Amino acid sequence: MKLLLMYTLLVGILFGADPLPSWNDGPSKKAIIDFVEKVTKDGSADFVKAENRVAVFDNDGTLWSEQPLYFQAFFAMDRLKAMATDHPEWKETEPYASLMKGDVKAAAEAGKEKVLKALMDSHGGTSQEEFDKLAREWLKTAKHPKTGKLFTEMVFQPMLELLEYLRANGFKTYIVSGGGIEFIRAFAQEVYGIPPEQVVGTVGDLKYEVKDGKPMLVRSGKAVFIDDGPGKPVGIQRFIGKRPIMAFGNSDGDFQMLEWTTSGEGPRFAGIVHHTDEEREWKYDRDSHIGKLDRGLTEGPQRKWTIIDMKTEWSRIYPE
Amino acid sequence: MKLLLMYTLLVGILFGADPLPSWNDGPSKKAIIDFVEKVTKDGSADFVKAENRVAVFDNDGTLWSEQPLYFQAFFAMDRLKAMATDHPEWKETEPYASLMKGDVKAAAEAGKEKVLKALMDSHGGTSQEEFDKLAREWLKTAKHPKTGKLFTEMVFQPMLELLEYLRANGFKTYIVSGGGIEFIRAFAQEVYGIPPEQVVGTVGDLKYEVKDGKPMLVRSGKAVFIDDGPGKPVGIQRFIGKRPIMAFGNSDGDFQMLEWTTSGEGPRFAGIVHHTDEEREWKYDRDSHIGKLDRGLTEGPQRKWTIIDMKTEWSRIYPE
Ligand SMILES: [Ca+2]
Ligand SMILES: [Ca+2]
Repeated sequence: MKLLLMYTLLVGILFGADPLPSWNDGPSKKAIIDFVEKVTKDGSADFVKAENRVAVFDNDGTLWSEQPLYFQAFFAMDRLKAMATDHPEWKETEPYASLMKGDVKAAAEAGKEKVLKALMDSHGGTSQEEFDKLAREWLKTAKHPKTGKLFTEMVFQPMLELLEYLRANGFKTYIVSGGGIEFIRAFAQEVYGIPPEQVVGTVGDLKYEVKDGKPMLVRSGKAVFIDDGPGKPVGIQRFIGKRPIMAFGNSDGDFQMLEWTTSGEGPRFAGIVHHTDEEREWKYDRDSHIGKLDRGLTEGPQRKWTIIDMKTEWSRIYPE
Repeated sequence: MKLLLMYTLLVGILFGADPLPSWNDGPSKKAIIDFVEKVTKDGSADFVKAENRVAVFDNDGTLWSEQPLYFQAFFAMDRLKAMATDHPEWKETEPYASLMKGDVKAAAEAGKEKVLKALMDSHGGTSQEEFDKLAREWLKTAKHPKTGKLFTEMVFQPMLELLEYLRANGFKTYIVSGGGIEFIRAFAQEVYGIPPEQVVGTVGDLKYEVKDGKPMLVRSGKAVFIDDGPGKPVGIQRFIGKRPIMAFGNSDGDFQMLEWTTSGEGPRFAGIVHHTDEEREWKYDRDSHIGKLDRGLTEGPQRKWTIIDMKTEWSRIYPE
């Protein structure tokens, strides 16, 4: 997040301005503010000590857009193109050839296994340090095919405000994403104000090697832990070691995280970002390939989870 | 760490008292203080921003004693005894029978594989929540066979002071241990002032299960990541996502962590706790089964690592 924006939000919060200016008055905004006031009010029956104010956020579709493809997939395809000089055979091999053309449909015909293998290839073969540099460089220039914006400009302004509001109230904010942990770390601090140690994600294999006296961590690209679905509560326990009291997601891949968060003792909050705005963003839920939200939409309300209607509840989608 | 002790140390530090009262004046104390003053002095060429002041500590033999056996092994043996009612066959089966008698030598004859399997059994078969309770209860009552102290009373007073001193200077302190992450989390906050999210360790398999509507994380006992030797830099990258500027260990299992820490740009510090005091603690290094320190003792000085001589440099070993 740009420092100035963060500072403006923080000053606003401290001086009693509306902490969530891009949220319209409505059920979600009210539920969030009621919850935060309740758990931070000293002496209240619902008071939660600062060290237990843990809030977890899914990333794709929750903090930034995810259509027509997870943004990391665009990065992967661009990486394959850049790596192709060392792999002339890819031009003739599926799914590589189609992925390099950006034709995901055709690539999919090679089968899930092979697509996964290609994605792993796109994320391997470098040191962790180089990978971080590549991801940062890509994020600085790559544009979204439909909006023409930088991907990091397609973060949700209302969620940036929410992150800031929670931190101003003593919460520690974490990302818990199915995306690659190191890809997210390449922008989370700057864009979300979330430091590397508060990013939980899918973890790639790393190997410690010393070459000519210089140690490095080498990436094979292979995933050793998938932080999705039932993996999310596992990732939370593994990295954070505490059960969150607040969780936000947008798809059924977040179901277990929201369930786990809301099953603990004391006050609990779960929010689902429902993509209902085909004008300003995208409209999808039960039948979507990306970010499918079916069980959560059915069971969420019964479980007293807050369904956030993007179209009616957010006055702005992206930062200006 | 007891709150009062922490508070006393903190007040002492703020008011310019000796921040490391249990360290004798000598090379190690001087090196530590020089380093901390250098990296925290605004405008100094060696200044390091607070967000990069990451210090990592091995646990066994670095923050607490580890002889005649890693303390977690005593816990494992006590767990096996408690579980034996459900496993009558263990009385007749090695290494279980010997482990339950505390006869590690005899148990070892069953071979490394089988001993590992038994240790895993001792740490599995419960939910994570139950395991945490079991570990906390055990730590409250179990006594060390030689000193008769609680294991948590066998932490090193000079290291408690060092942790507090670093935190007072804007460092984030982490444990990076080969021991089980959840076993350490059961006492790290109270004893070391280190919260669960700053503990990196060997990670056990967890499975998310919903039983009668109640979600839980179930432990199989199987280790999925070994945080030792070359695994330590991997664990650091995975959990913290930053290279530390300061690292402390005591054995060759810490070599790569110290090497990784000291290979980055800018000011770097590595310290090795050398067990030289057979009177007040134990004396061991190159030939020890537990906490073997050979390569580190040879190469450490050439690499400008600080070797801490427990016998001459620490005026106190344990808290009173
Ligand atoms: Ca999502
Ligand atoms: Ca050790």
